[in-house]
Amino acid sequence: MNFNKPTLVLDEEKCRRNIRKMAKKAIFSNVIFRPHFKTHQSATIGEWFREEGIKKITVSSVTMADFFAKHGWSDITIAFPFNLRELNNAKKIAAQIKLNILTSSLEHLITIKEMIDFRSSCYIKIDTGYKRAGVEWNDSEQILRMISILDKNDHLRMEGFLVHAGHSYQSRTKYEIKEIYFDTLKKCNSLKENSGKKEAIISTGDTPTCSIVDDFIGIDEIRPGNFVFYDLMQEQIKSCEREEIAIAVYCPVVDINRKRNEAIIYGGAVHFSKEAIYLSDGRKVFGEVAFTENEGWFFPEQRIFLKSLTQEHGIISVTEDMINNFRIGDIVAVIPVHACLAVDLLREYHTLTGIRIKDLCPK
Amino acid sequence: MNFNKPTLVLDEEKCRRNIRKMAKKAIFSNVIFRPHFKTHQSATIGEWFREEGIKKITVSSVTMADFFAKHGWSDITIAFPFNLRELNNAKKIAAQIKLNILTSSLEHLITIKEMIDFRSSCYIKIDTGYKRAGVEWNDSEQILRMISILDKNDHLRMEGFLVHAGHSYQSRTKYEIKEIYFDTLKKCNSLKENSGKKEAIISTGDTPTCSIVDDFIGIDEIRPGNFVFYDLMQEQIKSCEREEIAIAVYCPVVDINRKRNEAIIYGGAVHFSKEAIYLSDGRKVFGEVAFTENEGWFFPEQRIFLKSLTQEHGIISVTEDMINNFRIGDIVAVIPVHACLAVDLLREYHTLTGIRIKDLCPK
Repeated sequence: MNFNKPTLVLDEEKCRRNIRKMAKKAIFSNVIFRPHFKTHQSATIGEWFREEGIKKITVSSVTMADFFAKHGWSDITIAFPFNLRELNNAKKIAAQIKLNILTSSLEHLITIKEMIDFRSSCYIKIDTGYKRAGVEWNDSEQILRMISILDKNDHLRMEGFLVHAGHSYQSRTKYEIKEIYFDTLKKCNSLKENSGKKEAIISTGDTPTCSIVDDFIGIDEIRPGNFVFYDLMQEQIKSCEREEIAIAVYCPVVDINRKRNEAIIYGGAVHFSKEAIYLSDGRKVFGEVAFTENEGWFFPEQRIFLKSLTQEHGIISVTEDMINNFRIGDIVAVIPVHACLAVDLLREYHTLTGIRIKDLCPK
Repeated sequence: MNFNKPTLVLDEEKCRRNIRKMAKKAIFSNVIFRPHFKTHQSATIGEWFREEGIKKITVSSVTMADFFAKHGWSDITIAFPFNLRELNNAKKIAAQIKLNILTSSLEHLITIKEMIDFRSSCYIKIDTGYKRAGVEWNDSEQILRMISILDKNDHLRMEGFLVHAGHSYQSRTKYEIKEIYFDTLKKCNSLKENSGKKEAIISTGDTPTCSIVDDFIGIDEIRPGNFVFYDLMQEQIKSCEREEIAIAVYCPVVDINRKRNEAIIYGGAVHFSKEAIYLSDGRKVFGEVAFTENEGWFFPEQRIFLKSLTQEHGIISVTEDMINNFRIGDIVAVIPVHACLAVDLLREYHTLTGIRIKDLCPK
């Protein structure tokens, strides 16, 4: 492989290890493991999950449900408020497989129930503190009215409560992540009790809590996605070790600025997205830089970061004694801040063993 | 058109007007207009430029040069430090058309001149204050040594100095943009004089200055790109009026949160990127929301913005009296913060007259 332009490189071994670890933890905790496939989007990587015994998956759009249904997945949850305008496509999928949809408010449910004329399982999206979508966990009135509508409906069958504790991304210690997990758990169980729906599934997902918590007692289903690769943000949150991150973007060094001790790489916002994190010293960074060798990438003792990104340019900033490690024409590995977005932009994996994986879901 | 998922909509009339206006201004100022095609990336939209008499273009990668060369463009500048690892591809292109490459430091030039065995024009990239890539404008020693190398080289012919005054993006008034323009102009002319290269072309480009300055006296070539569509960032910089923005992303409203006065749309970071701007009141926003009608989009009196974005979710925040303008199933138009990144993500235009434009350059 020549790596003449920014290339998404996948360490299959690390990736399979991440999948296996989460699958084992789910078995140990006796919960359903319904991984979110929006991170990898690939039919091939989907098969690696199947090899670990996974049968149920989560996706984020009707298009993605359609893609994975065509690749043999027969139990799919679309973890996004059901989009009325895709009714016909959803209906076609629901005729083939077990499709589980999401309703995120009473108003939403009232609107969609008038239109949905096919059988589907339905989760009520619950907000336990993230404040993006869903009914607040303690809004019993709204939740009970939604349950009552679902109970009377011929097409939609109440499956359970679905939570995404996305506020776990604000955590910076394992302790904080666990706190959010137990808070979510407490709220979900109180909700289950108050709703009178003892058989309702409690489905939660988000890589930080699923990575850190050891035993999912009190939860019925987990739906993490990002853990398949992890990334710099997850490492910062403390969801993973840096060595567990399974993807990097290989980028050519195109120039060196010796006055500023910067290496200019071909690799920009159209390859990484503009997602950034702030280091503890206040620096805003767009990726971490590693060096490459045949077996993959390795990190120098002193951490190196991408300090800025424009459309195609990336700027690596180092100390004076480090700049000589970079030469024009070299390939460096950049660990993206957010794996999902980098994958979505690059849309093709090259494994360390030379396999190209191109079978990603269309947009 | 059903707009059942986030769709890039193009107002062809506005777009052609933007092209024509810039082309006329270039003729008036007697400068070469070499538009940057990285914003639109499309062969069809390229033809709209050709209809205005444009013959020379700018691109940001060898891949893009190859694509447009195949679409009949015979004079192309790759405005990115020449990437050694794409030498063979560049050589093939240079055998077919007039290819102009960029060298951004003495070290870079010394490295590439050893490898380049094909004829090409070469610009020296000059940094007049943006501090991304290029030689500092007053580093005469380095510049003179580069000129001397080029003068002696059989393959590379010194074409001129290329500047991208990207720091104009920090401007918030037309006055500030003009200040940067005149500062760039002064530096370029001093550079030309000191270098003894009277025939060298001074090429500058960046949408803010090219949009605001009336007469490009003292400059030989302009290379703006973003102006073809403009976007919310340009409107904030004051490069354009909001009514000149030629693209919007049409997104379905999937739910309404009446407690927080928010509309949840299907439209997230995989459609817009995570680029944000700060409004004068300190709010961080990811796009401006307009309403749609057959003829295009129109803005409500009170401006509405996208307050947050995750992978597929967008959250529109409004005042209580505005929330009733949104209904589940509606389509809203979102003006992206950064047109180049939204186009790169969505990769297909739908014009207001119903034409699909899919002929974008591959990555």
